[in-house]
Amino acid sequence: MYNQFPDAKILKIDLTKNEISIETLPGEVYRLYPGGSALGVYLALQDIEPGIDPLSSENVLVFSVSALTGLPISGISRMNVTAKSPLTGTIGDSQAGGFFPVYLKGNGYDAVVVKGKSEKPVYLYIDGDKVELKEAKNIWGKVTGEAEEIIRRELGEKNVEIAQIGPGGENLVKYACIINMCNRANGRNGMGAVMGSKNLKAVVVKKTKAQKAFNPEEFSKLSKSVVRLLKENPAIQGLGQHGTDGDLEGFSDEGFLPTKNWTTGYFPEGAAKITGETMSNTILKERDTCFGCAVRCKRVVEVPGMVDPLYGGPEYETCATFGSYCGVDSLEIVSLANQLCNMYGIDTISCGATISFAMECYEKGLLTKEDTDGLELKFGNNSIVPILVEKIAKREGIGNLLAEGSKKAAERLGQGSEEFSISVKGQELPAHMPQYKPTLGLIYSVNPFGADHQSSEHDTFLTLPKDSLPIQRLGKIGMYKTYDNPFEIDDDKVRYAFDTQCFYSILDTLCLCQFVWGPSWELCGPDEILDLCKYGIGWNTSIFELMRIGERRINMMRQFNAKAGFTKEDDKLPKRLHEPMPDGASKGIQLDEEKLEKAKELYYQFAGWDKETGNPTEATLRKLSLEWILS
Amino acid sequence: MYNQFPDAKILKIDLTKNEISIETLPGEVYRLYPGGSALGVYLALQDIEPGIDPLSSENVLVFSVSALTGLPISGISRMNVTAKSPLTGTIGDSQAGGFFPVYLKGNGYDAVVVKGKSEKPVYLYIDGDKVELKEAKNIWGKVTGEAEEIIRRELGEKNVEIAQIGPGGENLVKYACIINMCNRANGRNGMGAVMGSKNLKAVVVKKTKAQKAFNPEEFSKLSKSVVRLLKENPAIQGLGQHGTDGDLEGFSDEGFLPTKNWTTGYFPEGAAKITGETMSNTILKERDTCFGCAVRCKRVVEVPGMVDPLYGGPEYETCATFGSYCGVDSLEIVSLANQLCNMYGIDTISCGATISFAMECYEKGLLTKEDTDGLELKFGNNSIVPILVEKIAKREGIGNLLAEGSKKAAERLGQGSEEFSISVKGQELPAHMPQYKPTLGLIYSVNPFGADHQSSEHDTFLTLPKDSLPIQRLGKIGMYKTYDNPFEIDDDKVRYAFDTQCFYSILDTLCLCQFVWGPSWELCGPDEILDLCKYGIGWNTSIFELMRIGERRINMMRQFNAKAGFTKEDDKLPKRLHEPMPDGASKGIQLDEEKLEKAKELYYQFAGWDKETGNPTEATLRKLSLEWILS
Repeated sequence: MYNQFPDAKILKIDLTKNEISIETLPGEVYRLYPGGSALGVYLALQDIEPGIDPLSSENVLVFSVSALTGLPISGISRMNVTAKSPLTGTIGDSQAGGFFPVYLKGNGYDAVVVKGKSEKPVYLYIDGDKVELKEAKNIWGKVTGEAEEIIRRELGEKNVEIAQIGPGGENLVKYACIINMCNRANGRNGMGAVMGSKNLKAVVVKKTKAQKAFNPEEFSKLSKSVVRLLKENPAIQGLGQHGTDGDLEGFSDEGFLPTKNWTTGYFPEGAAKITGETMSNTILKERDTCFGCAVRCKRVVEVPGMVDPLYGGPEYETCATFGSYCGVDSLEIVSLANQLCNMYGIDTISCGATISFAMECYEKGLLTKEDTDGLELKFGNNSIVPILVEKIAKREGIGNLLAEGSKKAAERLGQGSEEFSISVKGQELPAHMPQYKPTLGLIYSVNPFGADHQSSEHDTFLTLPKDSLPIQRLGKIGMYKTYDNPFEIDDDKVRYAFDTQCFYSILDTLCLCQFVWGPSWELCGPDEILDLCKYGIGWNTSIFELMRIGERRINMMRQFNAKAGFTKEDDKLPKRLHEPMPDGASKGIQLDEEKLEKAKELYYQFAGWDKETGNPTEATLRKLSLEWILS
Repeated sequence: MYNQFPDAKILKIDLTKNEISIETLPGEVYRLYPGGSALGVYLALQDIEPGIDPLSSENVLVFSVSALTGLPISGISRMNVTAKSPLTGTIGDSQAGGFFPVYLKGNGYDAVVVKGKSEKPVYLYIDGDKVELKEAKNIWGKVTGEAEEIIRRELGEKNVEIAQIGPGGENLVKYACIINMCNRANGRNGMGAVMGSKNLKAVVVKKTKAQKAFNPEEFSKLSKSVVRLLKENPAIQGLGQHGTDGDLEGFSDEGFLPTKNWTTGYFPEGAAKITGETMSNTILKERDTCFGCAVRCKRVVEVPGMVDPLYGGPEYETCATFGSYCGVDSLEIVSLANQLCNMYGIDTISCGATISFAMECYEKGLLTKEDTDGLELKFGNNSIVPILVEKIAKREGIGNLLAEGSKKAAERLGQGSEEFSISVKGQELPAHMPQYKPTLGLIYSVNPFGADHQSSEHDTFLTLPKDSLPIQRLGKIGMYKTYDNPFEIDDDKVRYAFDTQCFYSILDTLCLCQFVWGPSWELCGPDEILDLCKYGIGWNTSIFELMRIGERRINMMRQFNAKAGFTKEDDKLPKRLHEPMPDGASKGIQLDEEKLEKAKELYYQFAGWDKETGNPTEATLRKLSLEWILS
């Protein structure tokens, strides 16, 4: 009865040839890569030669949702974008929420694969079987809000969602993103630049209905119980109340808020001014939601004459990268920078982090006013931040250098500035300090697409009581030690890092939101995901099958990188992260380099990766049914 | 709510010191080794120095049930016995059914650990908190049926179950077993000899009630649905109707019934006479059951004046080893040999197989009448088989040699007879031919305690249609290719062998009967096991956690062996298995040695075992939370 797995319908667009076709991926293959990130890298591996230039027409851009997308339940409208990353040179991978993902699926498609390069700017319009490439000359060069308006007007159709690049993507900013609803971003890895390099301005989907559940009655029960759980849950209420930025001040108090380009974790003079509660009490206009979700974690802010609610509000990462990273203590400035990023389509994390890198270079004399178009790039110089965002998006003056990301900028700048690029594989670190969460240090190192904070469970969960629900939930994937504080890294934590990485890998594959379906949140977890699969699409799976899928995705990515020339030498953290914390409550705490190296060696063994190269062994690929990669 | 895991109560008996004590294993440790085989080897590793002589007082004998044992549901009354094996020198491991397991648990114990050696024969009596060592001088030397009577009479108590050794165990026959109900055997690996070496004749448990379920209402639903499934299921009905011997004739027809010491797979002259259907139509008296089980697969046979129903009836393996292995075509003879084995407490598989080995030696002139006490040890000489069983149990004449098992007998005999010992690590092969089921060839090779047919799923399941329930069920642990015939071994089958081995490892750990709870039977499977754990004891587990447990057990065993000096050189099949099948429907089919070697290499990599030694790597042990073994 529950033995179904649907076929995937793949829309293939060849921009060079101006051809549109549809392919079916049979259910028994789709089940191995059941959507999102796993499907994306699977399709990428079919069509991309890993050694190519990411901004050439040979790159392929994959938009993918999952077999579950569009079911009427919370935390289920996410879309993955995959391509070779121009920021890192690795496989690129990025998720966003909103309504677009559900509508793409509602139109019948599990993935859109875009190859080649259009001669002129175009956008793709999808209305069920009607799929068209339309001329984009009127919207090319326009910021996202304006482009949305023009597209709706030209189509004479309000009921569409639009995933698009802004001028940042058009100008090939290496960390350009893809924006939908003007405020949801497939943010990281520069997927927007790939889209720009193809002269593809937007993908537009007609509004549709939710997917019908396989067992509507049981599914409805599940859906309602999720809403009830959400409403009863203090952690989720907190998330709803103050958004992801709710913890910012607390991180600073503990000494682990990355500040002034990671030179300290302590931002006493500014943290309270840019934390989520302050946002709630000042500029917050309303809360926003993705399709069908009861959490409503998204912020909408307004600063009359300065910040337009259309462009949403800043997440924690954005408040940190444009705030504490840069020594900026103004929510208005952070919100404006956030808005500009959403207008121009660039990643707030890499953008803020690259600006903070430039500030350190300036303060240390490696950049002067001559280089900066006269701007005084000092930490805490609030007003220059929005100006720099504009310059980056337009590649003007100093912006042209910073549009390359901190790593490439440092390579050009030299003079030891490489140490100020707080990045792994060229991707700037998000605002979670591995000194505080050492398993993140491990995952930042080994993650196939550079530093990422949403690819595993954080150490702090292991400081909860043994009988707490998150720890019990984690028991589904492993029994782990608990710790008095999170600072230690030992063998058991390596296992935790690897196991939870595999689990997060499922979430990004099934396109489930981590806030609702994460393994250790006190809300939904492994049990509910099984019910979701079973009642949602008739797929009676197991955590074992899901964990294999998660591991399969990571190995496909890693194998892509191996073919592109990456090895374990690229799995390195910036030196700064191994220095003792200088002040605040975290003073003296240190992420020991040698211990991390040992942890990494053990991780490779757990993962079945060659200890010399750090790449998957043949046996590991065979174990994961990936023998086709070898041929 | 479902976050429970009970503590284990361990009864510890020191026979040397005549001391009895009780230890508690906390739930969070028990959960890693939640009973049966995993708990047994865990406890063995605490107390046994792997290099010891298995028949010395330094060996430790562990009887273990599981956290689930005694719940009122089918297929749940199994007990594991663990010790260093005198037959193989590896860790020893053996399961039996009956009522004893449930009663042991009902008295409050998850395991009994027996150390040392008693000065005089004793037996252990368990009645809840009342635990006593009693003098066994009146029963020492007695066959099982007689000993049962005397024990009940002496105790003045009918409501007991007795697990005991017969004269075979007392005489240290290397494949002596432990018998309960006079017809259920912890058959393999010579656990009865270890018991004999300790002067422990029996363990006697008072009859008790079933365990109360954690959620009685849901559990009762599950239990009833299992009965309904059992009654509706054709495969299980067949098993109930003709017992495990139901397929014997079919195997011969296909050319894969081990015959005449594995010189052929074809037994046209005898198969029909010893197959299950013939048993049902002739000597079958009734069907028997284990505690609470609706399958009733056990046979009870009667041959007036020759075979007593008390000693049950022969299983398929017994009909093959005493039948086709020896060229014997009489169910009466097979049943008598079975009865003698159950009276004397020796393993029917190793016994029959060792006799067939001797027959081949005789036919080829390596043994003569001088060696055989005048017996004509020819294949098909029905009447000598029961005589040989007697001689083996009593170690009389030729029996003293054969009591060592075929491998050690061949070592003593020399003259190339080693090739006629169809064994791995000294344990004789059960009656499933790896030429027909090549993954069994792999598992026979690598299994830590020698050739075993109940340690993984057989290849034949992979010849079922893709949408059949067994294949769908297997999807919970892996998506495998299906095959037109079972003879091939490729990478995908190695994965199947390893994965299903881990799953069977769970079954032997949770002490679940494979006929009811096996992964691919069309009855209960992974889903129902999860419900069993959840509603039975409040343990909300996952297939992932269970598979890790299964893998953990295999690695503990393998590590025990490593410490005892075993390496991959011991993972070898007898040469004969690689020769082409000589006749019958299987003529020409061959288990390619080179392919099997390659499969084994891949298996080691899947298992995370060192390719030079075949033993677990440190990383693998750490991944499985077994770092304590390293210290």
